[in-house]
Amino acid sequence: MLVNGKNMHSIWLHPDDSAAVQIIDQRMLPHRLVVVDLRTSEDCVSAIRDMAVRGAPLIGVTAAFGMWFAAKEARGQDELYLKAAAEKLIAARPTAVNLEIAVLECMDAMSEAQSPDECILIARAAAETFLQDELERARLIGVHGVDLIREVAEQKGGEPVQILTHCNAGWLATVDYGTATAPIYAAHDEGILLHVWVSETRPRNQGASLTAWELLEHGVPHTVIVDNAGGLVIQGGMVDLVIVGTDHTTRNGDVVNKIGTYLKALAADAHDIPFYVALPSSSFDPDLATGADVVIEERSELEVRSITGLSENGLTEVRLVPENSSARNWGFDVTPAEYITGFITERGICGSGEAELARMFPELF
Amino acid sequence: MLVNGKNMHSIWLHPDDSAAVQIIDQRMLPHRLVVVDLRTSEDCVSAIRDMAVRGAPLIGVTAAFGMWFAAKEARGQDELYLKAAAEKLIAARPTAVNLEIAVLECMDAMSEAQSPDECILIARAAAETFLQDELERARLIGVHGVDLIREVAEQKGGEPVQILTHCNAGWLATVDYGTATAPIYAAHDEGILLHVWVSETRPRNQGASLTAWELLEHGVPHTVIVDNAGGLVIQGGMVDLVIVGTDHTTRNGDVVNKIGTYLKALAADAHDIPFYVALPSSSFDPDLATGADVVIEERSELEVRSITGLSENGLTEVRLVPENSSARNWGFDVTPAEYITGFITERGICGSGEAELARMFPELF
Repeated sequence: MLVNGKNMHSIWLHPDDSAAVQIIDQRMLPHRLVVVDLRTSEDCVSAIRDMAVRGAPLIGVTAAFGMWFAAKEARGQDELYLKAAAEKLIAARPTAVNLEIAVLECMDAMSEAQSPDECILIARAAAETFLQDELERARLIGVHGVDLIREVAEQKGGEPVQILTHCNAGWLATVDYGTATAPIYAAHDEGILLHVWVSETRPRNQGASLTAWELLEHGVPHTVIVDNAGGLVIQGGMVDLVIVGTDHTTRNGDVVNKIGTYLKALAADAHDIPFYVALPSSSFDPDLATGADVVIEERSELEVRSITGLSENGLTEVRLVPENSSARNWGFDVTPAEYITGFITERGICGSGEAELARMFPELF
Repeated sequence: MLVNGKNMHSIWLHPDDSAAVQIIDQRMLPHRLVVVDLRTSEDCVSAIRDMAVRGAPLIGVTAAFGMWFAAKEARGQDELYLKAAAEKLIAARPTAVNLEIAVLECMDAMSEAQSPDECILIARAAAETFLQDELERARLIGVHGVDLIREVAEQKGGEPVQILTHCNAGWLATVDYGTATAPIYAAHDEGILLHVWVSETRPRNQGASLTAWELLEHGVPHTVIVDNAGGLVIQGGMVDLVIVGTDHTTRNGDVVNKIGTYLKALAADAHDIPFYVALPSSSFDPDLATGADVVIEERSELEVRSITGLSENGLTEVRLVPENSSARNWGFDVTPAEYITGFITERGICGSGEAELARMFPELF
């Protein structure tokens, strides 16, 4: 979507260096737009692990390019090198299923190669295909999801449609369009009046720093609120629709997503507000029965104890918690299927639960 | 409770200056313990408005001392001075009912005065009485509330009782003991094993900066989590009991409390976890029918856009949100009576709703 009036992606092949891809270091946003080159599989592992890139679809794409770099690095190494690189990429973050899906898809393609050179070519093509597929999935989520927003707009007679989202399931989390934001951008570009409530999404504040920045750059009206305000805006009739992303949706339709999603789902349920999950098939995992089977990443307590923002001295980390108090920091929570109105997928919109998901993605069951 | 091993209150008569009271400037915690003198009614208005003091009971006590200063200032002024001072104190923050109750109680007492000198004496006595009453209410909430914790402890056979609280309804919000924390301190001092989940409570982080500091200084085991994690810890069976405070509880038992309280109540309800509100009678307002009648304070969006913490350069404010994104900042939300298991009051524990509150405080109905 637009940045400084020009279209931008979150990851792309380096225009001047055929051996590299480029990403935005998202840890610097919204304060600085910093572009970083990735040239090795280890670069990709670090970018994913240290969250220079984040968002389930984008870390999948980054891992796919990591397999291309690994294929190049594997020349002259023993046959276990590729397998080890794949494992490192998959292990870089534990919760999103996209990572594993991306790496296994590339490995599958590469297994056809007759020579190291062919393996490199195949790996690069597989990564590019994975990127294009992810891009297309996000675009189609927008194409289908815009119907939901248009429907609400028709009922509101000129008043803006009020949408609440959480974390960043925007174009920065994918390649372009976003998942949760794809219908929002599509509706905005179509001229539908809307306004987005952006919850800041502690501890890493992806809402306040990434979603707000995206929407601002693309010209979409929005307001940042603290996560605590999610109940008040829903209870107060200020939300028509909740749309969030997902890092891992299981066979039964449980949605693992950024910590705090479950609280918003509870509030939406209490007030009969539709709660939709934007689900590209790359985040769907019919091999796991329920959300209880997903490994919830627990990250460093430093992310709770401190926060980084812009001070007079530039980007500055400040401590918020007493030095000797402990903290815990889970990255995700599980929203049970019963709280979800439906999924917006690249194939269309479906209801909640296993039967509906099976209807949408029969070949995955 | 204990600070550096010595007992401390949140407000007290200046030991060396009979014309002043002293408070802790709570905006500096947990990083610095700064004591400030208050000598005028305007000092009290500023301290309340700018949140050097906060917490419904403590702002009531501060306002009561403000009326003492106003009585001194009123000498030589026309008779409207006192009334204007009272109005300014009540208007310093809009949501907590304690402010109004404290000021009206002092005005009532002062109306008996036969001379300006007597008025000053009466005002000072009224403020001291209000302080002592608030102290006693908090102490008694501890005396009664500890039963709830002891009951859970008996069921847990040696495992610590897990309590979740929100914001700071601790001794810093009252004079001593706290409201929500009074049962916690009482249980801890009695030797009952417990652990407190402290939600940081954005935007002003009273949980991370005040509750965590209090518990640390008093030696109570605790862990800070982001507000978003409230659903996960309850869903994950890590919470036995939720105890929060209240700024304004209405006749029907709706609880107005720090923004985010409602989301925790929804999660507790979804998982059948008892949700108790520590309610001193000074925060109960039978004159308002429901929570919808309470004015919810909307504060500056700067509190969402920026946060202050400790950096290498001392206390530092950092901006979190893009410069041109807007934000909104409501201070409180309403938890409907149906989500509340019961109230812990200075007279004992009662259930939720109007009939139970009337049984506890018949003279207020």
